[in-house]
Formats: sequence, C-alpha cells, structure tokens
Amino acid sequence: MAWDPELERAFHPRSIAVVGASSTPPASDRQWGGGYMFIRHLQELSFPGRIYPVNPKATTIRGLQAYPSIAAIPEPVDLVIVAVPARIAPLVLEDCIQAGARNVHMFTSGYGEVGDEEGRQREREVVEIARRGGLRIIGPNCMGLHVPAARISTMDGQPTEPGPVALVSQSGGHASHFIRYCHLRGIGLSKVISFGNGVMLESTDFLEYLAQDPDTKIICMYIEGIKQGRRFFELVREANRRKPVVIWKGGLTQAGAGAAASHTGSLAGARQIWEAFFRQTGAVQVSSVDEMADVIRLYLHMAPLAGRRACVIGGGGGNSVAWADMCNLEGLEVPPLQEETRQLLRRYVPPAGNGIRNPLDAAPLLQDLTAMRHALEIVAADPNVDFFILNQDLGWGGGQQNGERMEETADMLIDFVHSARGKPVAVVLEIPSGGGLRATTAKLVPRLEQGGVPVFSTLPRAARSLDRFIRYHQAARGD
Amino acid sequence: MAWDPELERAFHPRSIAVVGASSTPPASDRQWGGGYMFIRHLQELSFPGRIYPVNPKATTIRGLQAYPSIAAIPEPVDLVIVAVPARIAPLVLEDCIQAGARNVHMFTSGYGEVGDEEGRQREREVVEIARRGGLRIIGPNCMGLHVPAARISTMDGQPTEPGPVALVSQSGGHASHFIRYCHLRGIGLSKVISFGNGVMLESTDFLEYLAQDPDTKIICMYIEGIKQGRRFFELVREANRRKPVVIWKGGLTQAGAGAAASHTGSLAGARQIWEAFFRQTGAVQVSSVDEMADVIRLYLHMAPLAGRRACVIGGGGGNSVAWADMCNLEGLEVPPLQEETRQLLRRYVPPAGNGIRNPLDAAPLLQDLTAMRHALEIVAADPNVDFFILNQDLGWGGGQQNGERMEETADMLIDFVHSARGKPVAVVLEIPSGGGLRATTAKLVPRLEQGGVPVFSTLPRAARSLDRFIRYHQAARGD
Repeated sequence: MAWDPELERAFHPRSIAVVGASSTPPASDRQWGGGYMFIRHLQELSFPGRIYPVNPKATTIRGLQAYPSIAAIPEPVDLVIVAVPARIAPLVLEDCIQAGARNVHMFTSGYGEVGDEEGRQREREVVEIARRGGLRIIGPNCMGLHVPAARISTMDGQPTEPGPVALVSQSGGHASHFIRYCHLRGIGLSKVISFGNGVMLESTDFLEYLAQDPDTKIICMYIEGIKQGRRFFELVREANRRKPVVIWKGGLTQAGAGAAASHTGSLAGARQIWEAFFRQTGAVQVSSVDEMADVIRLYLHMAPLAGRRACVIGGGGGNSVAWADMCNLEGLEVPPLQEETRQLLRRYVPPAGNGIRNPLDAAPLLQDLTAMRHALEIVAADPNVDFFILNQDLGWGGGQQNGERMEETADMLIDFVHSARGKPVAVVLEIPSGGGLRATTAKLVPRLEQGGVPVFSTLPRAARSLDRFIRYHQAARGD
Repeated sequence: MAWDPELERAFHPRSIAVVGASSTPPASDRQWGGGYMFIRHLQELSFPGRIYPVNPKATTIRGLQAYPSIAAIPEPVDLVIVAVPARIAPLVLEDCIQAGARNVHMFTSGYGEVGDEEGRQREREVVEIARRGGLRIIGPNCMGLHVPAARISTMDGQPTEPGPVALVSQSGGHASHFIRYCHLRGIGLSKVISFGNGVMLESTDFLEYLAQDPDTKIICMYIEGIKQGRRFFELVREANRRKPVVIWKGGLTQAGAGAAASHTGSLAGARQIWEAFFRQTGAVQVSSVDEMADVIRLYLHMAPLAGRRACVIGGGGGNSVAWADMCNLEGLEVPPLQEETRQLLRRYVPPAGNGIRNPLDAAPLLQDLTAMRHALEIVAADPNVDFFILNQDLGWGGGQQNGERMEETADMLIDFVHSARGKPVAVVLEIPSGGGLRATTAKLVPRLEQGGVPVFSTLPRAARSLDRFIRYHQAARGD
C-alpha cells in the first residue's frame, strides 16, 4: 500500500478555503447555511491555520477577509471546501486547478443521488475536470472531514478528543451520530471521513490511507456500495491483520439496497457476497452506529479473551434464564461451573432460590464486597470460565445504593481484572433516565472503562459485541 | 373449558390470611421480609377486605389482630399466603385444610428448584397434602397475584390501573418488571399471576381461567416449561381465536434450558417443538418483557392492518438505508411508491438529496404541518402502502421544537389516522434521557396512544412488533 502525502495534507491542513460562504448567518437554526457554518465550526474549534472565505460579493465573513476566488488567495490552500450550488461547482473546480489547490471537499449535492440523467451528467463533468486538473475530490454530497488533532470539523462544532479510532462513512448522518456518541462515551477519534457519492476517492482509498496512519489503531467503516471490489477485499484482509476493521454494510436487504441507490447512487450488492466477504477477510461485521461503538469499547478497554465461555452474574431466576438465552443466541457459551467451584461458592452464596449455577444468582453478595471478590476469584479459578458478564443489579443499580458504595464496587472490579487471580469482566449497567442516581452512574462508566472494564447498556448488546471481539481474536490466533 | 368459581375467589378475595408475618419490619430495605411486606402492600393498596396475620407469637401486626392459626380466624378465608420456611409449610397446609381454606399462594421456596433430592421430596409432600385436602396451590417459590381491580398485590406496592391485559408468569422477577413497565406506559392490567414451580396450578390452568375471564382481552405468558403439553397446545389454539395470546418462552437455547431447570425445575423442551407450536397455534411469540409490552401497545391502540407494506418517513439518507434494512429484516416490506404518488409529492418534498422514495426523506415537511398532512394523504392514496412508520426527527425530536408545536403535530397525526383519507400510523419517538424536552416528550406518548397512534422507542422494536401484529391478523383472516 502506498502512502499518499497529498491526502495527509487534507487531514492536517495549514490553510482552508471555504467557497460559498454567505456573509450573514442562516435565517434560522433549521437552515444549514453551508459555508458560513463550516467557518463557524472551524473558529469554534480554534483551528490554528488560516481560513479563507471565498465570496466575490463579500469583503469580510465572520471577521475574516473574503476573497473573490481561490486563485486570489495569497498562498496555496491545503483544503478547499465547496459549498456552492451544483451548477456553479464546475467553475469552482476550475478555480482550484488554476490556484494549484489539490484537495477538495465537495459538500454540494445534486449529483448521482438524484437518480436522473441530469445528476449523472453533472457527476461525469466533475470527474472529468478533476482528472484533468489532478484534483482529489472528497464527495460530492458529503459532510467531509472531522480531525480532532488538527482541530478541524465540518460535521460538528463540539470539541472532541483526539484518539485512536477512525471512521470512513458514506453517510454524513451516521458520521455525525458516531462523533456525538463517541464524544459522550469518551472515545477519542483520529479521523472521521464522510465521503458521500465518492466519485473519485472512496472507501478503498481512505482505508488504504488509514491502514498506514500511525494515529489510527481501529478502523470503522459505513459502506453502501463499493466500486473496486477486488482491491477493497484485499485491502480489508491485509489491514485487518494489523488493525481491527469494523464494517457496517448498509443496504443488505432488498429495501435497504433500494434506499442506498437513491442515497449515494450505490449498487449495494447481494447479501451472500457480503457474508463471504466478512468470512474471508475476518473484518468485524456490525449493523448500527451503536454496535460499532460497542465493539470499539472492547478493543479499547479489554484484553483479548481466551474463549467464549462466560460466567454471567446477576440476580433473579427469570433473569438468569433470559440472560442465558441471550448469550447463547449471540454465540456465547454459558457453561456449567465445576462441582468444586460450586462447593467453594457455598460459603458465599446460599443455595436457596436457584442453587449455585451459571448464570449465578448472586443477590446475597450485594451486601458484602469482600464476599463478592472471593466469589469472583473462586469462579475465575474454574477452567470452564473465560470471562465474566456482571449485571447492573450487582451492587450499584439498586436505588438503595449510595454513590460511594458504587465507586467502591467499581474499584474492586478494576483491581480484580488486573490481579493474578482475576479474569476479564464486562459490565452491563443501564444509566437511569432520571433521578439522583443518574449523575453517579454516568460517572462510573468512564471510571470502569479507563480501569479496563468495558460497560454496556444491555446484556444483548454486550453479548453481541463480545462474540464479534472473540471471533476476531480467534481468527487472528488461527483457532 | 370449565369456569372455576374457586379460582375466581382467589382473584377477588373478601379475606386474606398471611402466614409467617413478623411483627416488625425487615431490618433493611434489602431484606424482603416476606409476610410483613405482603401485609404492607395490601394496606398501601387499600385492600377493602379483611387481612388476617397468622403468627402464634404476635398479638398485633401493623395494627391488625394476629391469630395463632388459620383455623382460629373467625371466618373462612378466600386466600392464604404462605411465607414460612419450607420445613414448616406442611403444618400450615394442614391448618388450611382444617380451616376449610381452599386457595393457597405459597411464597415459600426451597423445593424442586434447589435441584437436590430433599427439595424434590418436599415438593411431593406438598402435592400429596394439597390433593388430599382439596387445596389449590399457586406456587411454591413464587410471587403470587396482582389484581388492580381487587386492590391486591403481592408483587408491588404501586397502585396500578385496572385494564384488559393479563400476564401468567413462571418468573416473579419478570412479572414485577412487567407490572412496572405497564404502569409507566399507562397499560391497564386485569390479572398478573406469578406461579413459580407450578406444582398444582400451572400455565395451562391459568390460561383456561383467563380465556373465560371477561376482564381480560389480551393474554400474555412467560413460560419455562409445560407439564400438560397437549392440553396446553389445544387451549392456546382455541383461546388465541378469541383473544391474542402473547407468549415469551424462556429457555429456548441450551444454556437457557439449563438455567430454567434450576429456576423452576422445568424441562424447557426443544426449540423446534416450540417453533411448530407457534406456527400451529398462531400465538404471538416474543422474547422479552419489552417486546411483550410493545406488541400489547399495538393491540390496544391500532386497528388491524391490511398488509405489511410500510411507508417509512424520516430524515437523512443514511438513516433511510438503515430503516429500510431494519424493516426488511423484521419481515416488513418497504415498497417503491407509485410514479403518480412521487409526482404529487414533488409539490411538498424537493427532490434534492435523495429524490422522492420510500423511506421518504421528509426534512422539508418539518417546517409546515399543513404540507406534512398533504404529503401523508398523497401517500395514503397509494395502493402500495398499508401503513406509516414516522420517525422522531419529524416535527418533535429536534431541540428546536417547542412543546406546543410537538402537541400540534401529535393532534394532526391523530386526526389523520381517523380521517377518511388516512391510514394507520406508528411513531418512533425516543424520550430524551435529560434536558427540558424530556417532560414534554413523555407527555406526548399517552396523548398519541390514546389517540390511536402507538409509540415505540426504536425503529427495530416498532418493526418487530408490527410484524407480529400483522401476522396475527393475517392468520385470523386466513390470508
């Protein structure tokens, strides 16, 4: 794979031109306001480079000097953002060529996604100009780039933290959702790329770049269609050996494929082909932004697991049945505990109610953190168990618990997973939607995760992500 | 099916004896406190009949005169709640026989669910005494009865509303969860029955009762195992023709079946057998309390649907692909709109972005309720469309909307579904977890549902429930 220094420039620009910025803010919050909003976001993020608004009818925009054209800007610009109507875009591209600008993000829509001949003709024209002038087009019909380390974002004015996770997305909406979600859950981002119709640069090109990018340790992708199937397949297989590649393929159903055709003009392809693709590349398949973020959490916060045998801990007989079903349905095993383990546990867990089984109905341990620690160590010594899933009832979710006790439970778990007698733990902890416990619970999540204990909002979400995570490492080990 | 006047008495008791109530409250909120708590719940619910605590060591409990035995109570009691340790329970049952009490709820655990010979032996002893004395045992190892109209509950001190929905549950935990959930979402309950090990009365008996019960219009069941398979099959098939029977079968996986064995001593049975059961009885299969409540919402608030072809309305190209995939995966169709429909829609929805397709990217309609109403009527006239799924972005979820506008949108939808040019609508509306909009959004849900527009928290949950609902009515019509 070849490193592309020109593309690197787009992600770390020293200067950005925004073409199509009006000199006044949009009339209402409901209007996007294109270029004006891009400039506002860059200013809010304290972008350290130069911003050049391009608008022949304005002198200043948001306190910045405006230029009549890109060619009139006194330095070469590393990135041009095009936010003009589609009929004017060809003139702007010619302006880029004349000015020697190479990287162009086309926010402008009205191309192949419209589904008529006029749109397709416009798209061909863009490609023709770009090829002739050596432009690298991101888009059109897309939200562009979000790079926290470079303090640039065309999607979100929120200051998000730099970090090891990248996303390549054919949908700007999904990319924005992903950025907000990661911000809320403390997941740092290297690069988020929304590339829309992808008439020149597309998934394959960005994957090639991210596979080499030293700032990116986990690559996520939302894909509707692929133009260079064979090259993409080879790249994913190769990249996935070094960094997990997590892919949401949109449009796998007939209805979804129809919607994808009208969204980005993509041919979504048959489901069977994609099933083979995932099997052969080893890439991690997900089917929503939430699932993507869940599985990332495991790569960031959990050591590789030795196998798929879970000990599930919580309270309630009906819950135990439901949890066992959910784990099994998602591909995890919930094996019986060894007789010796059960005997040792009797000291801490009375057999009343459900005996001592897996899932372990551990309500009595709620009273006593020391007993819970002993019980965890006893089960961790059982060779049938690879890891734990702890449910929220266990020591924090209950209305009776105060914040201090919840923090003590978290610290005990963090200590346990790193101790010689420990095994990995995932926690299911629903953050209450209101009430006094909300703030305390919300604070626990980063505390647990930074301590190496990933947190999920429901058991099925935990089980599904753990299955994907285990499969990835099993394939990597050649199990 | 025979009507059982004795069982009717248990659900509408004039008098209740609680055996095993201590005279002081439990030491902490974490201790259940058995009989004492049952009495407290009955008092909190203003149970209009007589409550008789039975405890030979007490004179009064919570202001009520205590009796040394059931036989010492000055009237026959309609329901006896047994909350004593398992070793004492046989004496209490003999006391019931002597006093002429017939209906017994055994809260006591320590029977077949323990999994040892001692537990099984105790269970056989209970059955032997009960048969000899003509007792009807609910339990053991269960939470008993919750009947809002009779103002009795052993599960929850919350005053819930009477209504048309019944639940028979082998798990007390799931029953409690169901009661809380229905209370929060304004779903009224006729009878909730937690029957645990079901050594005498079990699912089949309660189903027989509820099928005849004039207060019950929808029957829900959580089942781990069935003792009288053939009779249960016939009863479900027959009852389901008159009232929807919604069943969550726990323990369908290998791990789940193991957990069910230790929870209620049930033999959970093979998955293939249950698949055939659902196919042949037409009962509605669900796999969680949430799914149960979702599907109930449709029976309560939506007219039967003519078919499974949905028009999905919302905003965003990537979302449209995801929604189409989700609907298709859950068995709904998202058909193309007719060319005439698309032409007529052009007046209200500009083609930019995604053209005019299904899912319909209807962001522009946010501005204008009248335009939205016109667009809905145009699509409703399309013979390809049976109903609508509206996503939250559409006029209320956004931070810019004020409460008044959200209410106007709700009222427009309610008027639309009942109008001559209308078609049924389901709404996907996530209640925000915090912020000023939470209260307003939460108020919208009952307003919409009482107006005939069911509300779901996510599109996959809506689609899954709609699929079940449509299948039920298609089977009923013989489609």
